[in-house]
Amino acid sequence: MTHLSDTICALATAPGKGAISIIRVSGPETFTIVSSLFSPVSHTKEWFAQGHTLQYGHISHNDELIDDVLISVFRTPKSYTGEDSVEINCHASVYIQNQILQLLIQKGARLANPGEFTMRAYLNGKLDLSQAEAVADLLASSTEAAHKVAISQMKGGYSLELRDLREKLLHFLSMLELELDFSEEEVEFADREQLQTLVDDVQRRIHTLLESFSLGNAIKAGVPVCIVGEPNVGKSTLMNAILNEDKAIVSDVPGTTRDTIEDVIAIQGVSFRFFDTAGIRNTSDKVEILGIDRTYEKIKNASFVLLLIDVTSPIHIIKKNIEIIKKRMSADAHLIILVNKIDLVTEEQLQDRFSSSVYSQLTDDDSVVYISAKKKMHIQKVIDTLVDGVQISNISQHDAILTNARHYEALQQSHEALEKVREGIDSGLTHDLVSLELRQALHYIGSITGTISNDEMLGHIFENFCIGK
Amino acid sequence: MTHLSDTICALATAPGKGAISIIRVSGPETFTIVSSLFSPVSHTKEWFAQGHTLQYGHISHNDELIDDVLISVFRTPKSYTGEDSVEINCHASVYIQNQILQLLIQKGARLANPGEFTMRAYLNGKLDLSQAEAVADLLASSTEAAHKVAISQMKGGYSLELRDLREKLLHFLSMLELELDFSEEEVEFADREQLQTLVDDVQRRIHTLLESFSLGNAIKAGVPVCIVGEPNVGKSTLMNAILNEDKAIVSDVPGTTRDTIEDVIAIQGVSFRFFDTAGIRNTSDKVEILGIDRTYEKIKNASFVLLLIDVTSPIHIIKKNIEIIKKRMSADAHLIILVNKIDLVTEEQLQDRFSSSVYSQLTDDDSVVYISAKKKMHIQKVIDTLVDGVQISNISQHDAILTNARHYEALQQSHEALEKVREGIDSGLTHDLVSLELRQALHYIGSITGTISNDEMLGHIFENFCIGK
Repeated sequence: MTHLSDTICALATAPGKGAISIIRVSGPETFTIVSSLFSPVSHTKEWFAQGHTLQYGHISHNDELIDDVLISVFRTPKSYTGEDSVEINCHASVYIQNQILQLLIQKGARLANPGEFTMRAYLNGKLDLSQAEAVADLLASSTEAAHKVAISQMKGGYSLELRDLREKLLHFLSMLELELDFSEEEVEFADREQLQTLVDDVQRRIHTLLESFSLGNAIKAGVPVCIVGEPNVGKSTLMNAILNEDKAIVSDVPGTTRDTIEDVIAIQGVSFRFFDTAGIRNTSDKVEILGIDRTYEKIKNASFVLLLIDVTSPIHIIKKNIEIIKKRMSADAHLIILVNKIDLVTEEQLQDRFSSSVYSQLTDDDSVVYISAKKKMHIQKVIDTLVDGVQISNISQHDAILTNARHYEALQQSHEALEKVREGIDSGLTHDLVSLELRQALHYIGSITGTISNDEMLGHIFENFCIGK
Repeated sequence: MTHLSDTICALATAPGKGAISIIRVSGPETFTIVSSLFSPVSHTKEWFAQGHTLQYGHISHNDELIDDVLISVFRTPKSYTGEDSVEINCHASVYIQNQILQLLIQKGARLANPGEFTMRAYLNGKLDLSQAEAVADLLASSTEAAHKVAISQMKGGYSLELRDLREKLLHFLSMLELELDFSEEEVEFADREQLQTLVDDVQRRIHTLLESFSLGNAIKAGVPVCIVGEPNVGKSTLMNAILNEDKAIVSDVPGTTRDTIEDVIAIQGVSFRFFDTAGIRNTSDKVEILGIDRTYEKIKNASFVLLLIDVTSPIHIIKKNIEIIKKRMSADAHLIILVNKIDLVTEEQLQDRFSSSVYSQLTDDDSVVYISAKKKMHIQKVIDTLVDGVQISNISQHDAILTNARHYEALQQSHEALEKVREGIDSGLTHDLVSLELRQALHYIGSITGTISNDEMLGHIFENFCIGK
């Protein structure tokens, strides 16, 4: 996959209706290949002589004009990939795009693999691996929060910090290995106490990054919100009311099962992933039990559980439901009880029903909001409760937040290896065993920024990119 | 709509998943507005000092980085619109696109109307109106033939010819009007015979263009092919077989009625628009009669009628159907009789049934192809018969072919006005009346290239463009 001697080409803009398309070409033969089909309008000198210029002209084949195009010229190393490359801006017609790509391939280019331009940028040292991965996150980001963490990572993010930690550990490793070379003389180049302090420090910093992952994941994939409620209690009315209140963006994610429907809604720069679940009740029906199991699973994974209840439903059922949900919820999740259809009762009736009996069930951590989804009453309160609960909105581009599962795993493994280093020092393990664990820790840290990489790993990372990036 | 003092902006690439997006900005304030949000990386001089260059830098807002971008600089008059303009190449994230567009609007730009960039190009004399219209055709072109006529028109096409005709007529008009000024002296500046010859010539050339419209329309909208056949005779099997044979592109156009389904298939660079119709038979059922009426309508408008018959169906019904269809078909349309399911009979049975009885019904203009749609037998013959029948595939970019309904109408009206000029001369009509008709003819010709235009007409032309073009 990593042959840089090829010249690659691909459509870089979204397919579909538009005014302009960009076809990207990169590699050593770029100018030769493109010259064989492009005639610039002005002929003062070679059209590709100067980088960062725009050249207007025609692409033709067998004397038939394919299109008027504008070509952006980039000369190595000042390009995205670091190679000679061009961007052909043509009319956004599928026919024209295909014709130009076919011609490029005829003349010796090959169609790029997904993410291959960015992989070349990485291989040519234009960005490190974690930055390259952030490019894909940036393209996928649809909220302010997701954009912030992606762009921060693309501009370096915690790469610098990781490189710093790695260098310090490397220094110690070389000391340890020097000792191995002189093992018979029993000299000690590496100060054990300093190493202990360093390992402590590195572990602490890795731990902070690991901790940020649950936030990072919520930012990237959406904060999981589980809505629990009986059929007809007004779940979809509530969803529509939230959408209306905030002019939020909604996208339907088809659920994996019929019982769970997902909606991703961006509210004040944060994605919330709403899971609509089947109600909870005692049943012996096998299918229904399956549905309830799935509901429990969703409750367990949610950051917020919205229990939507009908103001008129029997108190003992509400109590029972709260009990069941609390047992299944994760410890740091929030329970929000939404008492719906308050437009159907008077203020007094409401107080009568709920003042004593339900409140007594609630701890201080739970919130109760009285709403009417239908009449759009107090919907803003629901939104505020959600937004206040996540505190994503005030993150800044300078915060180091882990969003990438691969990085999370690598840091975890690195943390474990460092734990063994520490234990090794404590228990007076031999140098070579300590140094082995230290090498492991270094390997995992290095795999994040790509100081250490291999074809298989690169294949996995870039296969989820779009073609043309 | 035609205020050129505004600076306009829009997304120019297709929305959706891609690597790069382009946001276009054009108008007198382009550089001022973009400077207020863009920081170039290199600061040697003003980033917009030189046209046709690429400037790398950042777009930020309130010290938060929005994106790394590459800006293409175009200085008036060397740009698409003829105005100062830039193309901001950013990452193809919806969030980033929206942020940049919002910032541009905050700083004084306004969102462009559909086609407004191209309209400005027209208003600034970069292309005439028929060329501007061809830009939209080019973007929509999905076949080689449609691409050829669109690009030929965009590069000038019959504009030049029309301008030439118009100038000659204008010359005569000025002569005629000079005579009016000197009417009391009875001098004759315009040679009546020469005018007659000129009108003849112009009418002939307009007539040729008008004649090309049926071909042009077929190229643009697809050659209309009507499939007639009883239910279960194998219509959809045939369509699939054609698709399979040619790896053709298919798109479903939802029919306006339940009885008519449309499929557009590109075969060898030509679009064919297949209409699947209800069968024809005697009936008194009101709904069915309505369906049959629609079938007749489709037959009337088709360039090809494919009568699909079952090899085993009774000969007298086939004869009857051929009779009915021929009565309804347009004079220059082709009838192709497809005898289907030949895999169910032996060679001899086939000859027995069809050699005498049906052939006797056919003129030389009709084709009979024996096929099995299911077994994919002789499908290529069907395709060849269609492609040979249209002769679109050998048109060249140098042929003047009318594809635009607006142009067709204007040329028709121009032709009529010239007819009145000719009659006027013949019958010795007064100069002022002849000159009035001549002015009409000139008006219509001028409206095609936009020598004559008004806001309302421009509004109609550009409202169907995409935003960003």
